[in-house]
Amino acid sequence: MSDVVLAVDLGGTNIRMAAVTAEGGILALVREATPKNVSPETLIGLTAQLADECQGSLPADTKAIAIAFAAPAPAAKNNIGILTKLPNLPSLNGMDLGTALRNRFSLPVVLENDANAAAIGEHWIGASKGVDNSIMITLGTGVGGGLILNGEPFRGIDGTAGEIGHICVEPEGHPCGCGSRGCIEQYASATAVIRMAADAGLEVATAEEIALAATSGNETALMVLGEAGRYLGLMLAGLLNTLNPEIIVVGGGLGRSFDLLRGPVENEIRSRAFTPPADRVKITVSSLGDKAGLLGAARSAFQNARVSV
Amino acid sequence: MSDVVLAVDLGGTNIRMAAVTAEGGILALVREATPKNVSPETLIGLTAQLADECQGSLPADTKAIAIAFAAPAPAAKNNIGILTKLPNLPSLNGMDLGTALRNRFSLPVVLENDANAAAIGEHWIGASKGVDNSIMITLGTGVGGGLILNGEPFRGIDGTAGEIGHICVEPEGHPCGCGSRGCIEQYASATAVIRMAADAGLEVATAEEIALAATSGNETALMVLGEAGRYLGLMLAGLLNTLNPEIIVVGGGLGRSFDLLRGPVENEIRSRAFTPPADRVKITVSSLGDKAGLLGAARSAFQNARVSV
Repeated sequence: MSDVVLAVDLGGTNIRMAAVTAEGGILALVREATPKNVSPETLIGLTAQLADECQGSLPADTKAIAIAFAAPAPAAKNNIGILTKLPNLPSLNGMDLGTALRNRFSLPVVLENDANAAAIGEHWIGASKGVDNSIMITLGTGVGGGLILNGEPFRGIDGTAGEIGHICVEPEGHPCGCGSRGCIEQYASATAVIRMAADAGLEVATAEEIALAATSGNETALMVLGEAGRYLGLMLAGLLNTLNPEIIVVGGGLGRSFDLLRGPVENEIRSRAFTPPADRVKITVSSLGDKAGLLGAARSAFQNARVSV
Repeated sequence: MSDVVLAVDLGGTNIRMAAVTAEGGILALVREATPKNVSPETLIGLTAQLADECQGSLPADTKAIAIAFAAPAPAAKNNIGILTKLPNLPSLNGMDLGTALRNRFSLPVVLENDANAAAIGEHWIGASKGVDNSIMITLGTGVGGGLILNGEPFRGIDGTAGEIGHICVEPEGHPCGCGSRGCIEQYASATAVIRMAADAGLEVATAEEIALAATSGNETALMVLGEAGRYLGLMLAGLLNTLNPEIIVVGGGLGRSFDLLRGPVENEIRSRAFTPPADRVKITVSSLGDKAGLLGAARSAFQNARVSV
């Protein structure tokens, strides 16, 4: 009978929870809509409700709870901490999520940035399995990132490393929610391509709609995805020169349409990066899809739960 | 009686050699001008001559020879290899420097990129001593870089990591020798500020002359260094978001005038990077100066010579 951890993906739209085994099996997966302006108390209550649903039929004891969210996890090194910057869930800013979960569940708690969690998941049982140096980039509402260096998640001194979505690609470019301008997030996120399409006269609600339009030959959609791809390639060329990784794993909603970006991305890398890192790198789409973050958070809990008790 | 290694800094202008102890003591330091279009044979002959000068009065046996040069060291992981891209010394392209030195000296040979060597030197006994995560940036003829992550030099899968001088800061910017455009090397190297000053009507021969002019209030010089600083800050903000290091060590000829760049660099970082990594990082000038590369190459030899035999 295998141990199990509960992994939570706290998103602006949904909160999902999975019961995950030490081998990466998902025994249960449940979700609820994230309430508008969710309070810390409501969040903990929802988490408890989801845990009840998950655990009802579990064949094993729960060993820990891990939660991934779209913000830097400044205290991630200690796997406890206070939420300081949640652009999608501002009502939770300042919440001591680690302590609240520990008090409610009496379990070890692990916090992860969601893109770091996705990187860990893909490295565990996904697209970068067995690869020591990889970069995860998620093209979703924002652009997130996670680094695996020398076979381990690389977090930096404060746990905030991997925020590659806020590398500047256009000095006087579009204002970014982070306070800077011209971040790659403003050109290659799902949100950005929807904005760029609207600016060019094509009204769409999702990145999938742009991808569909491009596939059927819409010139505006093709132009917008071409621009997103060129900026993404420019930024990745700098990362290849800096880190010389083996694989870049692309995730997120827009990442599912990466084949439409691949041409301009690879052209830009070829014309901008040094030859050895450009020749070396494989760019591949996430193999775990929207479960990468859940699985990575679970993996992190299996590896770190003892230190966080 | 301490062991000694010979460390070579192969530059476009000079070739220098030092005899270095395991504690970082420099027992001898000699130099020769690098001949124009130096051939592989001449280089090895010069190296042998410098070694004779160095070793004449040494109290110890030489254990290894290490050489640092201004190019990616694609085979640095194995510490042997062929020179593939030496912008300052094109006559050596294709030379198997590792084998040539081993044959001439019958000693273990270690090759290092010069900025990686500087990073290793500063981490050993310089400005980043005792710090696990640091970035070395050299503002010289070009812009070089070296990463220390988790207390070790980070080289990437092919040994080419750390080429932060070729991060793009201006998509349609000045053409770069690397084949891309708008690399930070084109805005914050000594060469770049001399070019930018000339474009603005101020003819100078060296970065020191611009620094002197700026110190005495010359507005063109101040404008040029301000622009260099802003671009450097923009690029470093992205690196802070990506790697969340403790220290950035600035070296190279223009690095000696970093106090003239510090204001615009730090303003740009403050307005562009996330707060935790921006608050965390210290930016400091190299404490080993033009000996950082020699000392780092020596350190690398003491650590790696056995594997390279």
